[in-house]
Amino acid sequence: MKPIMIEFNNSSSESLYIQLYKKLRDLILSGDISAGEKLPSLRKLSESLNISITTARSAYDQLLVEGYIFSRPQSGYYAAHDLSSGPISSSSAQTPSQELSETGESNPFICDSDCFNFVKWKKCSSQVFNEYSDLLLFESDPQGEATLRFEISRYVYSSRGVTCNPDQIIIGAGTQQITGHLCRILKKMDINLISLESPGYLPVQNMFRDSGFAVSHIDVTRDGIDIQRLPSNISSAVYVVPSNQFPTGAVMPIGRRRQLLSWAFANDSIIIEDDYDSELRYFGKPIPSLKSLDEQGHVVYLGSFSSTLFPAVKISYMVLPEPMVLIYRTMKDRYTQTCSKAEQLTLALFMKKGYYYTGIRKLRSLYSQKLFLTLQTFSAIRPENIKVTHTKSGINLILKIRTKKTADELCLEAKSIGLQMIPLSELTDQETASVIFYYSKLPLSSIQSMIEKLIRIWNDQV
Amino acid sequence: MKPIMIEFNNSSSESLYIQLYKKLRDLILSGDISAGEKLPSLRKLSESLNISITTARSAYDQLLVEGYIFSRPQSGYYAAHDLSSGPISSSSAQTPSQELSETGESNPFICDSDCFNFVKWKKCSSQVFNEYSDLLLFESDPQGEATLRFEISRYVYSSRGVTCNPDQIIIGAGTQQITGHLCRILKKMDINLISLESPGYLPVQNMFRDSGFAVSHIDVTRDGIDIQRLPSNISSAVYVVPSNQFPTGAVMPIGRRRQLLSWAFANDSIIIEDDYDSELRYFGKPIPSLKSLDEQGHVVYLGSFSSTLFPAVKISYMVLPEPMVLIYRTMKDRYTQTCSKAEQLTLALFMKKGYYYTGIRKLRSLYSQKLFLTLQTFSAIRPENIKVTHTKSGINLILKIRTKKTADELCLEAKSIGLQMIPLSELTDQETASVIFYYSKLPLSSIQSMIEKLIRIWNDQV
Repeated sequence: MKPIMIEFNNSSSESLYIQLYKKLRDLILSGDISAGEKLPSLRKLSESLNISITTARSAYDQLLVEGYIFSRPQSGYYAAHDLSSGPISSSSAQTPSQELSETGESNPFICDSDCFNFVKWKKCSSQVFNEYSDLLLFESDPQGEATLRFEISRYVYSSRGVTCNPDQIIIGAGTQQITGHLCRILKKMDINLISLESPGYLPVQNMFRDSGFAVSHIDVTRDGIDIQRLPSNISSAVYVVPSNQFPTGAVMPIGRRRQLLSWAFANDSIIIEDDYDSELRYFGKPIPSLKSLDEQGHVVYLGSFSSTLFPAVKISYMVLPEPMVLIYRTMKDRYTQTCSKAEQLTLALFMKKGYYYTGIRKLRSLYSQKLFLTLQTFSAIRPENIKVTHTKSGINLILKIRTKKTADELCLEAKSIGLQMIPLSELTDQETASVIFYYSKLPLSSIQSMIEKLIRIWNDQV
Repeated sequence: MKPIMIEFNNSSSESLYIQLYKKLRDLILSGDISAGEKLPSLRKLSESLNISITTARSAYDQLLVEGYIFSRPQSGYYAAHDLSSGPISSSSAQTPSQELSETGESNPFICDSDCFNFVKWKKCSSQVFNEYSDLLLFESDPQGEATLRFEISRYVYSSRGVTCNPDQIIIGAGTQQITGHLCRILKKMDINLISLESPGYLPVQNMFRDSGFAVSHIDVTRDGIDIQRLPSNISSAVYVVPSNQFPTGAVMPIGRRRQLLSWAFANDSIIIEDDYDSELRYFGKPIPSLKSLDEQGHVVYLGSFSSTLFPAVKISYMVLPEPMVLIYRTMKDRYTQTCSKAEQLTLALFMKKGYYYTGIRKLRSLYSQKLFLTLQTFSAIRPENIKVTHTKSGINLILKIRTKKTADELCLEAKSIGLQMIPLSELTDQETASVIFYYSKLPLSSIQSMIEKLIRIWNDQV
């Protein structure tokens, strides 16, 4: 191993370890330090360059985390063999911060940049910083910004018939935050039992479990959850997705909805209605939300913006019945708002200017084209071992594959070509595996080729 | 009560209830419905206008929440007497969403818009939307964006001598989020006892209590926490603010720091170092952070951007020792990232371009001028019942007031003139009350007049 000669620029604004890190990185990339070659120990390096061991270690740590070098226990550090394996910085010689977009490489999935118009969003964002920056000198209201809650109250009324005033709305950074608040409120109401749909959305189950709720699973029939099996003579809560049950896509008919409401009324219980992607459904006539039928105030309505804006926006909300609002107020100040205030104000403007509404219309037509093309492609190829059952959702459908592979294996194979899927273990047995396929995330232009590729890889024809 | 005549525009994009809400609001503001006048009941209104009761109720709800009307139980709705009492919309006739800035009115405190340069921030934000919008089509890494963690690792090294790689950094939306992760990790390490400084920062105490930790309070001496009283022969954690203890401002000398580290090493325990406003301290020479002295990996380092950027930015972080990183990885995917991804990427650019560093230099000089002027003003007036003890912090100082009033009463009086303060019950007795005074939040130009005003109101000379 030839000694490493490095000259430091002490007048540089860059710390020694960054300078060392860059020099070593360049030596590796140039091949002066060849792949697999052992690097000097921390002590050797610090002595030969007359720097502290800490500085040497920081530089090595940086090279490690970026995949330029690897370490062998009790042996030392070695230059990486395959430089494309870097978790952050890959083919290029830049530090991760020099190209933000490199972080994107950590995500293996294809996305469709036509799904959201960032120009209008940026316009609203700039307006917030130009005209309302004084608001940003104060923390956000723990309940969420009043202007956004006002826009949401207008939106849920016009889109889902939910009547509420902004005081009943609580905003949080994602479902986990909202559910956290909800759990604390239910506990104060001495509600400790929650019924969940089976099969259902697992993360939600864990959230309630973690918060110490007893969880009971109720089977989902073609018309949604089986009301006969809900607990009676005790105050409890039930979590339902009546307009598009996950993963079956079952839709609760109006009759069943009224039965569920009477159950809640009769047992002084709470219905949690998750209406997560109602905006993007376009089959048959829309079913009124449970909340819009809720005259006695037993329904909590959950909504989110992630699927109608862009996934990186973490803004969810819930609409509480008045009595639960009063309970929330008693604990409100103990929990800070997690949503970016600037992002909340941007969204409020975005909705007020009508961009949100036009965006949804655009998404619906785009996604329906994608669905059409997806179904068309499958029926053209007619893979005899794949059954396509489309859900009521506007963003995904379920594939039932006759195969010896597990749902997880199929999802991994899909991931290897950039397709995002979720395994449905509940709908999987020895003969068939079921997965959720998000056609909405694929660019129109690549849907056909991707599906063909998918079928080939699943049937080992590659 | 004269009947209310309203014509609806059914071709309007506005829902009926919004039209009704606006019409009624204008009638109230114009005086056609005079202050205190009873409004028609929901049923009467819906019959006379031939609209649904729901629509009428939504309009009334909106007027209620904005303070245009009030309701008397068993009596009905009345036009408000004092229209400035509206919680959201006040003097103007606009809906809250028409002027975002109205939400700011809910905050009673004075702020200083010179504290942050939104121009550069906006520039970075726009760059994110222009060049990296594809990244926003994927959710954020639950641990935080890699590029921001890289910038933070460089920053904590250069500013506080903390050596870490980006993998050791976890980002969250505020201290509550970070502490939540930390509690879960400590539990996995079978650490259930946490020692806190007394007096100390209360919210932190509650967070650990709520997570089921046994909390023991250790007195703070002039040199910081009393190490002799820390638990031994058991793995536990201690939460300290060694560089600026809250509220006493005590600074832990280097010797005591080394003792604390040996305690942690000897008892296989964890030190949680909250370094929250270290950037803004400018008295004497900076003390090295505990983490920078931590060779055995027993220190968790907590940092935040709220006081060096703007309060509405909710981005905090912690630096974990390697063993705790491994534990975090096992639970990482169960918790979604709460920070806005766009805001994380914006901050990464903001730091990379050096704006963050120049911003801090600017803040330090601005705040030191504010402190100087504050001390000058007090010593000029010489209020014989107010003692000014300035902390090592660059943002606040402690006022000890000889008075019969409680600290809470003094803070309320301060609030009434726009000054933000925190009562220090620990340092309050019958003769004197202590409060924390945030001079940093006042514009330079108004510091003198505000302090004079404050002294007058506290001494009932108004």
